[in-house]
Amino acid sequence: MKLLYPTTLKLDVPSLEGFAPTLHAYDAHAPIPEDLIDAEILVTWANSAANLSDAAKRMTNLKWIQSLAAGPNDVLAAGFPKGVLVTTGSGLHDRTVAEHALGLLLTAARRFDQMREFQLQRRWPQHLGGPQPDRPKDRFTTLRDARVTIWGYGNIAKTLAPHLAAWGATVRGVARSPGVRDGVQVYAEDSLAELLPQTDALVMILPGSEATKDALNAERLKLLPKHAWVVNVGRGTSIDEDALADALEQGRIGGAALDVFKTEPLPESSRLWTAPNLLVSPHAAGGRPQDAEALITYNLRRFLAGQELKNVV
Amino acid sequence: MKLLYPTTLKLDVPSLEGFAPTLHAYDAHAPIPEDLIDAEILVTWANSAANLSDAAKRMTNLKWIQSLAAGPNDVLAAGFPKGVLVTTGSGLHDRTVAEHALGLLLTAARRFDQMREFQLQRRWPQHLGGPQPDRPKDRFTTLRDARVTIWGYGNIAKTLAPHLAAWGATVRGVARSPGVRDGVQVYAEDSLAELLPQTDALVMILPGSEATKDALNAERLKLLPKHAWVVNVGRGTSIDEDALADALEQGRIGGAALDVFKTEPLPESSRLWTAPNLLVSPHAAGGRPQDAEALITYNLRRFLAGQELKNVV
Repeated sequence: MKLLYPTTLKLDVPSLEGFAPTLHAYDAHAPIPEDLIDAEILVTWANSAANLSDAAKRMTNLKWIQSLAAGPNDVLAAGFPKGVLVTTGSGLHDRTVAEHALGLLLTAARRFDQMREFQLQRRWPQHLGGPQPDRPKDRFTTLRDARVTIWGYGNIAKTLAPHLAAWGATVRGVARSPGVRDGVQVYAEDSLAELLPQTDALVMILPGSEATKDALNAERLKLLPKHAWVVNVGRGTSIDEDALADALEQGRIGGAALDVFKTEPLPESSRLWTAPNLLVSPHAAGGRPQDAEALITYNLRRFLAGQELKNVV
Repeated sequence: MKLLYPTTLKLDVPSLEGFAPTLHAYDAHAPIPEDLIDAEILVTWANSAANLSDAAKRMTNLKWIQSLAAGPNDVLAAGFPKGVLVTTGSGLHDRTVAEHALGLLLTAARRFDQMREFQLQRRWPQHLGGPQPDRPKDRFTTLRDARVTIWGYGNIAKTLAPHLAAWGATVRGVARSPGVRDGVQVYAEDSLAELLPQTDALVMILPGSEATKDALNAERLKLLPKHAWVVNVGRGTSIDEDALADALEQGRIGGAALDVFKTEPLPESSRLWTAPNLLVSPHAAGGRPQDAEALITYNLRRFLAGQELKNVV
């Protein structure tokens, strides 16, 4: 039995040893070599679309794909037979995405983006420094006492929320299943009409799916206060980008910091590049699976024992 | 007995009531009016130099100045008689300065500054996003496992340190008095030669004084690793700016995010505007005293009772 691991990231291969399958490196941007084509287990990370669609046709022994992506849309789109089990890398990106989201929130609050623009012109942005009002009602300037709504309340949100609370923010969640999670009140989506008007910063961490398409649409954008910021570290499909650009251009919201877009890289022609108070982050929140070896070996042991795997799609 | 409070910030005046002194608002950018000149207590915030030097001459009854600044250099330079007690606003800026410092650290780690520059050119900075190595040894890309040294380990550092530790950073402090503070090991300055080479990010929160002048000089900059970042939210006098510009231009450190400068606003002719990987923040970390009323009333009660005040210079 063979397990193939990609060379697209640096894995600590010895820490995968101790199981029956033999371990084989493969190039995720080329067809799987003939001598590895009979593998039963494939670990994927940043594979090319061509590699995956080729593997879907030729790897006829394949039983299980362990993706290291939180949302393995690439694997799901490649045409693997239904019998091939797919598990995600959910959890491997929680800390790194949450850290990025916090960075975007603080950039929005402290306007590091504007400071940079002034610096490039050798100008001192006096209005951003010096004595200033503490927590003015009409601007998002600090996490202290800020009302942060996290829409899409999974593991990344659970990782982020305590950090926001530690700075004095009031955190509320929105998810399909309401309830209290780790002390944070999570509401169902039908509460959005009440929550959005009471939001200083909306953090979106929704997965990509038909159900989340354009979740933040023109109607919902209208419910946000004029000073509210939108941060998206989930999937670009969850925001109606034209409606967002309209809201920004008309000054109806405070700003938006986006790490994900409908089309990536963002096309040169996009309105978003120059929409006022919009920050473009190039899908940089995640992209660094952490402790992947622990997930692979956990699932490998369970696979070999015929048990249910973690993170099954 | 009169207490004068400035109109340069919004104070909750009713919460100062209940004591013998009468409360009077004053304009901190104009001479103190004749009918208030006999006041014994002066609260200061963002006063003009002219206001203070005039007050130093004319307020002959003055016993106590409560500054709301963490470092009331303005009051100390104004020429008040030695008998006038001065207390600082130390503690009122801890959270807001610490929040700014975290924002600068995350901007450095995630390079939001470079993202902004690319955005202004409608360019997608592919090198900053997508799949990437986790915690490369030659770059500061995350707080996780980062070694953060905080030089100047007072209340702001104590506020900041737990947030850094919560993201997985190893925090060490440097101060005149070594010891363990809230679980963080604080070293004396003679340990800098050992600490700086083991530093991924150096956060400087030194007060302004002769003793801290050019504390980060050419010699000490040479001890930092090539990827290390310097963040300064203390006083601009504590860095030899030319030595820092040299280190940046020669690529000897990773970058610097400065909120304070020797001359503010930073002169248009300064080398710092265009030094590579240097971020200019316009003295924006603090500037928003929080809960000033609590400090004023705490000290007012003690003043009236003849007890020792908090934050005496």
